[in-house]
Amino acid sequence: MLYQTENPHGGNLYAYPGALDFSANTNPLGASDAVRKAAIESLSYMDRYPDPYCRELVTAIACFEGVPETYVLCGCGAAELIFSYCYAVRPKCALELAPTFSEYSSALKAVGCWADQWFLKSENSFTVDRSFCGYLEKGHWDAVFLCNPNNPTGQLIEPDLLEHIAKICHNKGTRLFVDECFLDLTDFWQENSLKRLLPQYPGLFILKAFTKSYGMAGLRLGYCLSGDNGLLSAMARFSQPWNVSSPAQAAGIAALGQSDFLEQTRSLIQQERPWLEKNLNTLGLDVYPSCTNYILFYSQIPLLEKLAVRGIVIRDCSNYEGLAKGWYRIAVRQHRENIRLVSALKEILLEES
Amino acid sequence: MLYQTENPHGGNLYAYPGALDFSANTNPLGASDAVRKAAIESLSYMDRYPDPYCRELVTAIACFEGVPETYVLCGCGAAELIFSYCYAVRPKCALELAPTFSEYSSALKAVGCWADQWFLKSENSFTVDRSFCGYLEKGHWDAVFLCNPNNPTGQLIEPDLLEHIAKICHNKGTRLFVDECFLDLTDFWQENSLKRLLPQYPGLFILKAFTKSYGMAGLRLGYCLSGDNGLLSAMARFSQPWNVSSPAQAAGIAALGQSDFLEQTRSLIQQERPWLEKNLNTLGLDVYPSCTNYILFYSQIPLLEKLAVRGIVIRDCSNYEGLAKGWYRIAVRQHRENIRLVSALKEILLEES
Repeated sequence: MLYQTENPHGGNLYAYPGALDFSANTNPLGASDAVRKAAIESLSYMDRYPDPYCRELVTAIACFEGVPETYVLCGCGAAELIFSYCYAVRPKCALELAPTFSEYSSALKAVGCWADQWFLKSENSFTVDRSFCGYLEKGHWDAVFLCNPNNPTGQLIEPDLLEHIAKICHNKGTRLFVDECFLDLTDFWQENSLKRLLPQYPGLFILKAFTKSYGMAGLRLGYCLSGDNGLLSAMARFSQPWNVSSPAQAAGIAALGQSDFLEQTRSLIQQERPWLEKNLNTLGLDVYPSCTNYILFYSQIPLLEKLAVRGIVIRDCSNYEGLAKGWYRIAVRQHRENIRLVSALKEILLEES
Repeated sequence: MLYQTENPHGGNLYAYPGALDFSANTNPLGASDAVRKAAIESLSYMDRYPDPYCRELVTAIACFEGVPETYVLCGCGAAELIFSYCYAVRPKCALELAPTFSEYSSALKAVGCWADQWFLKSENSFTVDRSFCGYLEKGHWDAVFLCNPNNPTGQLIEPDLLEHIAKICHNKGTRLFVDECFLDLTDFWQENSLKRLLPQYPGLFILKAFTKSYGMAGLRLGYCLSGDNGLLSAMARFSQPWNVSSPAQAAGIAALGQSDFLEQTRSLIQQERPWLEKNLNTLGLDVYPSCTNYILFYSQIPLLEKLAVRGIVIRDCSNYEGLAKGWYRIAVRQHRENIRLVSALKEILLEES
């Protein structure tokens, strides 16, 4: 028996060595050479403790995001920051979407918080609409968790609506946690980020990761942005001092130095996502519109094992609250890989028809 | 302002770039080539998530320690496991030594636990003696934290006494947390480990690290051993799924494959520690006997800044509960480095006399 975390995720390739991974929704270009080189160089001083304050990395992030350095805290992947946020805030009741990334509820459960869920509807393409504001106005929660774009649905919240939600939360004294980990992989990374509101809304907290944007999932590096110094300070105190390894710090600094890498990634996704959507639709799968580097779809025919024997892993979404058997998420990958997936699906669906 | 953890530690070389570091008490040989090579190789798949269950690493640790795999849980450095232990156990009151490693009290504070301290006495060479058992018998704590050898004092608890302490804790239903992170660097790594008692004492928890033993502080890898499956399972649930990075897992597996590296390290320490102790004594410093790779001493003359201008950093121990201004800890390093430290100290002390 090996000790498991609350919910199994995608990207767990170690159970399928050598498989083509469509289950983890990370950058289709992988890590860049410059990032890998920086990580390798950092190993020359691997016997030293990493900088507990991530000095150089914090400066680079603050510059990249256009926020003061005091707004930045780094973590061992965004996932660690979800837990340290919950340990620092200790909400009693929280509101989250369903389906959404399951680590919010794992972390909330760890602090004994009751989590209320706002169910997104498939017939509404899983969008957050104005009715969410009405719900928000009426209830009380210590913290509201949003994921923008949402994982696994790939939907963005419309900017005006998001701003309105932030205002409601601020007026009610409710903390707003917005996970923007996939935002930089969408075409709307500028207008959809709430970071412009950080100075006026101290209860606003934004989560970001290098994992997805820069293909660094193995190194573990995430960060958060908030104008609430007290919160970030508590999160740091509630974690170990050396949570960000030296290779992660070095790779993060190198990643932010490559101005065109995200642009290249977005171009690729912009090209490949419609191609995948069109082909999955043609195969008769129930595809939901996405704004980012992954696609949610429904299939009446079970796909997991049949793809696995063909050396392909996709994300079974049946363990997401609000989804069920038959829901799958695939990453948008490079063209030759996407062709392989579509061919395998075609084979499977032809066999079954 | 950068967000700080509770207590500043040694090894924070980023404030003194290029300095010779006697403040962090890690392996004087640094990381081995095999370990560095394994970490570098792991970067070829750095865009993948690390194995959330650390399958191969857990197998290697279980084999190295001679315990079942179910007794093992890995973390992002031993420091993370101190926090997840406290989050999982949620003790209301705990007992720790003073002085000792400050992360126990940081983690206890994070869960609102009241920490009682058993003060070690300098006139007693900071040893834990039989009077500790009497204290233990009379009071009640949810958990007792011991560090063996203790940091920063370098003293081991005598094996019979330690076993007696474990028995008292077991009989009283008190959890016993024993930090053995430095034990493999002492000559008594076999007889002093409590791991033989794990099967009979489910309340016993042992902490270990690759950081110190294998010169991997920058990579972050620690583990713990316990027969309490429920505890380890809760600790895993109360942490993020991917806390151990791919380079850390690869390096850990490689480290355990090198049977003679620890032996070489112990030989070096066995030779260099007495040399350092003798020389510090000759300089008139108040040196306390140590069993491991660091030495605690007292100096009436302030040393920190005078060493820093000579390019050497040592650990100012004034922020340890139970110590005060004038207490310092140095790591045992390689001979040429130890010579440099002794020469610098000689210069400083001559100037002052």
